[in-house]
Amino acid sequence: MPPVSMKASVFKGPKKIQYSNVPTPKLQSPKDAIIQVKATALCGTELHMYRGDVVPKSNGYITGHEFNGTVVAIGDQVTSFKVGDEVISTFTSQCGECWACIDGLSSSCVDSKVFGTWALDGGQAEYVRIPYADNVLYPLPKNIDRFTALLMCDIFPTGWLCVNNYLKKIQFNKEKLKTDVILQLGVGPVGLCCIAAAKEIGVQNLYVVDSVESRLQEAEKLGAIPINLNNEKDIPQLIKDKTNGKGADAIFELVGNSSALKLGFDTVRSAGFISSIGYHHEPLPFDGLQCYLKNISLQFGRCPVRSIFDESFKTFQKVAYKFDGFIDVKLPLSQVSKAYEIFDQHKARKIAFLIDDKLYL
Amino acid sequence: MPPVSMKASVFKGPKKIQYSNVPTPKLQSPKDAIIQVKATALCGTELHMYRGDVVPKSNGYITGHEFNGTVVAIGDQVTSFKVGDEVISTFTSQCGECWACIDGLSSSCVDSKVFGTWALDGGQAEYVRIPYADNVLYPLPKNIDRFTALLMCDIFPTGWLCVNNYLKKIQFNKEKLKTDVILQLGVGPVGLCCIAAAKEIGVQNLYVVDSVESRLQEAEKLGAIPINLNNEKDIPQLIKDKTNGKGADAIFELVGNSSALKLGFDTVRSAGFISSIGYHHEPLPFDGLQCYLKNISLQFGRCPVRSIFDESFKTFQKVAYKFDGFIDVKLPLSQVSKAYEIFDQHKARKIAFLIDDKLYL
Repeated sequence: MPPVSMKASVFKGPKKIQYSNVPTPKLQSPKDAIIQVKATALCGTELHMYRGDVVPKSNGYITGHEFNGTVVAIGDQVTSFKVGDEVISTFTSQCGECWACIDGLSSSCVDSKVFGTWALDGGQAEYVRIPYADNVLYPLPKNIDRFTALLMCDIFPTGWLCVNNYLKKIQFNKEKLKTDVILQLGVGPVGLCCIAAAKEIGVQNLYVVDSVESRLQEAEKLGAIPINLNNEKDIPQLIKDKTNGKGADAIFELVGNSSALKLGFDTVRSAGFISSIGYHHEPLPFDGLQCYLKNISLQFGRCPVRSIFDESFKTFQKVAYKFDGFIDVKLPLSQVSKAYEIFDQHKARKIAFLIDDKLYL
Repeated sequence: MPPVSMKASVFKGPKKIQYSNVPTPKLQSPKDAIIQVKATALCGTELHMYRGDVVPKSNGYITGHEFNGTVVAIGDQVTSFKVGDEVISTFTSQCGECWACIDGLSSSCVDSKVFGTWALDGGQAEYVRIPYADNVLYPLPKNIDRFTALLMCDIFPTGWLCVNNYLKKIQFNKEKLKTDVILQLGVGPVGLCCIAAAKEIGVQNLYVVDSVESRLQEAEKLGAIPINLNNEKDIPQLIKDKTNGKGADAIFELVGNSSALKLGFDTVRSAGFISSIGYHHEPLPFDGLQCYLKNISLQFGRCPVRSIFDESFKTFQKVAYKFDGFIDVKLPLSQVSKAYEIFDQHKARKIAFLIDDKLYL
């Protein structure tokens, strides 16, 4: 039986992440499970709230949507898991029964919630409650270490989705991936996952933009062609020069702000495609006439990790070795406040937490 | 040999369409042809300039982008047509040789121009010059009268495209067309073409919105379910009620203004699709966060009639009989100013002009 109280990272407001003593979660529904967390990480999306760009409906929730651990309690209706199972969670909960879940659009689930938000306590804690456990948990992958496996909660499927959106758009014509020129905006952790997925799926000409040199070096190792935003004044023209004046066939947009989307719009060719998985919080930097005249197609939104888990995991298994040591900073959860600060300042590529100062392997 | 001067409809500014004497066009390039116009029509897109919503770079051009007639002169490099051929034109010119033309994206042709704009004189005239004639003209279809055939210049392929964009989005899964609920915004001439194409292709549940009752009656005859914007206060809720709270699977947006796009955005379900072929000239009525949270996909833009002519024509041949009498007003070209006025006031469904007061059949 879990103890009555536990340690957790609590969001108290922008730049205020507090390591706190809170009540241990209990089963609330027969479909719930309780997980003892053994590894958890910090995701770039959480910085939107940390920085105050996105304001939660309320404060006081437990942060974190990337975690894995051991099942310590299950409700009566949980059939796929039992106490003692080692599991990994998707970064959202989803019911598995609504039209969206059935249709392969789990991020549109009518009762979907994101862990580590005002709507659902997260996993930067000793324990976490999992609603709809049968539809949220997966067995922890074997042969992949617990920390690398955290990438499957959110960022690898999300990066993979960004590529797959384009593959769908071109009717799965993989021959086009060999000749098309793609510009990716953002080379944070999701961006690196996106590059690994893109190269594995068959993208040949992948330019990537960021302003952090160390990220660009990682990107180059994965096979992308790096462009430093600070050094290159006219990226649309640079890509035009590489494409006989045509522009990029597609944009992978992973930053989630207006200026990135503008750069993408300006760089994509006529009748091109923008696959945007960034978490936006600003106006769109183009109007109706520009969209019409550019014959543009755009796809936005949150990754339905549940719906694409199995397919993206096939790619992940092939490239997981490239992510050995990807989590470059591991801190005890008690240092969570400092971890957000470091991550916000791009001083770490990816941060994971040790729970109770223990390193579970 | 054509005479030195001819009669034509000239755009002099918003609400100023002038029947004028102008020089007859001449061959300017070995790829040009000159057509003696025998039927020409007025398209809804032209009302954007007429109303002043879209301001041309300069005035004084000959209007009209829907026309057919007889070849009276060809340049040395025109190989597919000869003097005396009866031909129909796409509403744009395109070179046929650039990456976009080769890639099936003729509306993105690097030298594409729209007839009847400041960039290229149009066909509401006795004669019209056709650049890249081999890539712009088609033999006038047999077994379809000259006036009904005008629909193939622009509006039928454009309506067809709106449907085909969705078919591509769902990976040509025609089974989905039977169960999906689609909301179409706008039932002008393109809208009626879109309905006819949608029903022929297999859309079962097609709701259509307009404020003009006579248009809605036509829509209903073609198999759509009409919704009068003036009578229905909450269309998103109406469609939710019809779909167990889900919303429309797709939106066909043919109006080209911000309020239509807003209505579409509010009515489409999560992870839905907006196929927009309206000619927009306003800001987009949604922001980045709304797009992200809705997991929306959007496709905008001008129809590549040249690239889809053959495919859309297959559908047109099956439904052309439904468009007998579709052009409900035929006027001599000398009445062009009055024709724009009538059309602007929705007093005609579709207007065609008789050249020289002659009715060519």
